[in-house]
Amino acid sequence: DRSLKVFSLNSNRQLAEDIASHIGTTLGECTVSAFSDGEIQINIEESIRGCDVYVVQSTCAPVNTHIMELLIMIDALKRASARSINIVMPYYGYARQDRKARSREPIAAKLVADLLETAGASRVITLDLHAPQIQGFFNVPIDHLQGVPILSNYFETKNFEDLVIVSPDHGGVTRARKMADRLKAPIGIIDKRRPRPNVAEVMNIVGNIEGKTAILIDDIIDTAGTITLAANALVENGAKEVYACCTHPVLSGPAIERIDNSKIKELIITNSIPLPEEKQSEKITELSVAPLIGEAIIRIHELQSVSILFD
Amino acid sequence: DRSLKVFSLNSNRQLAEDIASHIGTTLGECTVSAFSDGEIQINIEESIRGCDVYVVQSTCAPVNTHIMELLIMIDALKRASARSINIVMPYYGYARQDRKARSREPIAAKLVADLLETAGASRVITLDLHAPQIQGFFNVPIDHLQGVPILSNYFETKNFEDLVIVSPDHGGVTRARKMADRLKAPIGIIDKRRPRPNVAEVMNIVGNIEGKTAILIDDIIDTAGTITLAANALVENGAKEVYACCTHPVLSGPAIERIDNSKIKELIITNSIPLPEEKQSEKITELSVAPLIGEAIIRIHELQSVSILFD
Ligand SMILES: Nc1ncnc2c1ncn2[C@@H]1O[C@H](COP(=O)(O)O)[C@@H](O)[C@H]1O
Ligand SMILES: Nc1ncnc2c1ncn2[C@@H]1O[C@H](COP(=O)(O)O)[C@@H](O)[C@H]1O
Repeated sequence: DRSLKVFSLNSNRQLAEDIASHIGTTLGECTVSAFSDGEIQINIEESIRGCDVYVVQSTCAPVNTHIMELLIMIDALKRASARSINIVMPYYGYARQDRKARSREPIAAKLVADLLETAGASRVITLDLHAPQIQGFFNVPIDHLQGVPILSNYFETKNFEDLVIVSPDHGGVTRARKMADRLKAPIGIIDKRRPRPNVAEVMNIVGNIEGKTAILIDDIIDTAGTITLAANALVENGAKEVYACCTHPVLSGPAIERIDNSKIKELIITNSIPLPEEKQSEKITELSVAPLIGEAIIRIHELQSVSILFD
Repeated sequence: DRSLKVFSLNSNRQLAEDIASHIGTTLGECTVSAFSDGEIQINIEESIRGCDVYVVQSTCAPVNTHIMELLIMIDALKRASARSINIVMPYYGYARQDRKARSREPIAAKLVADLLETAGASRVITLDLHAPQIQGFFNVPIDHLQGVPILSNYFETKNFEDLVIVSPDHGGVTRARKMADRLKAPIGIIDKRRPRPNVAEVMNIVGNIEGKTAILIDDIIDTAGTITLAANALVENGAKEVYACCTHPVLSGPAIERIDNSKIKELIITNSIPLPEEKQSEKITELSVAPLIGEAIIRIHELQSVSILFD
């Protein structure tokens, strides 16, 4: 039998504890602090020699510190002879820099993949990547979990009468389609177009939303500009009410204010990124991805333990 | 002929400008900013195709942001077809994590070297590494410049009568010896020992300091605990006056207060790390490493340009 240990870094301790408890274990002992000059100091306080280690870290803000914590932890685990170093990264920072949109742009999402492998990651477990292509940035195995079932299950309990699932932009239609399949609803698309340069965008709604309950779905809600404009456009165009949901609540800058002042009735998020005190809002409902990730770890670990029989 | 371009990131713009001006050029155009959620956004505003690019970045505080800026910049330059990507890193962050002092510690200095190479660095130019062994962490060429001549030249102009160069600990004796050779002075060592566990350290001074002007030299002054205790011990033991100097003024936490309240008469530093407004002190004199680094770049570039003849 191989022993499994779960460690948490500083980005999302509550989720890490919930994952560990789902698996039936507790977090490994490890101190992650900073020296006086801000350099990260990591002390792993228990032996991990020969263990399969799972490190939970979302690379949300402060993203650069969280990435470096993760890389330094991987380095320490590697030098302490971990058997495998499995990165549980529910939110993948820099995922939106996944291609050269213009000349001389970096592809930071690929850089992050390379950095993780260089440090010594054996496997990455992540959730709703901004683009599924990011899986191809890795040469180690990557498990790509889906948030749509968790979000859909929540809406299912509400028993809405007449539902439409709306993507706030062209890029998200596949995601909306997945939720629509589960909720047996049609889809709609917010079709933003700029008629001429330097002229305001026109919000055209594709699909029938008249008198319906609309659910807007996105992977990331960051400054919440897109989603709140979309919600207001839906209501102005005759939707009965608008819910919004996303997997990754980045919620930076004016996000909370915009949501509170918008026509969104309720915003459903997951705990892939923790919601700090100052970002709480009565409109927000948080669902946990701990059981999903916990199950994934149990299954991965079973397979690894089985494969040892054939080693 | 090959064209050379110098770019600056956010850690040390003044030094980068001074280096560029020493070389007889100006900084390349490049915007380094942050998105609303704190992710770094880099736009290189001019073509660098086929150029030898020099990127100036000290990985001082905020160290993790400065490292990520550098890695993302290297990624962008690589994808924009730079001929060579030369990293000018006057201060090397995480250099003190250069060995496993205890079980399960990371070796972050080696990790940083691997990250730079993974991103695509062709060469690294740095100054007074905390341990010269860090050169061996790289597989790409590394130019290791010395601050001692610059610091020594400054003291030479003072024409001290009776001088002794003192290392504040055992680890720095080689550095003190180098300065002593240049200034034709003897050396001294602060020999700290803890007689028994949980008993205060005893400061024993090895070498004759009685009635002399003492110059304390270190590579990094961080919280300034070591250097100010050493200065006070020297004065208490009969030194006429005490100067202190270092290459890298990290000066975190209580450093400035400690220096101002200490027996140190003058502290000489270099601009490898910029001194922000709130860390100014009347006791501090800053010397520039721009000419040293500028000359190094000119020579490296000449050699690269010559080698093209033999390509
Ligand atoms: N952290 C970020 N915050 C806001 N925009 C970003 C961020 N990272 C990348 N982008 C931009 O978002 C766009 C990609 O988003 P998308 O078109 O939804 O894939 C690109 O134009 C990027 O420049
Ligand atoms: N940023 C830092 N600030 C303070 N101490 C550090 C830092 N990085 C490493 N260290 C510690 O400094 C010691 C190495 O310093 P030295 O003995 O002078 O090479 C090790 O015990 C490290 O744990």
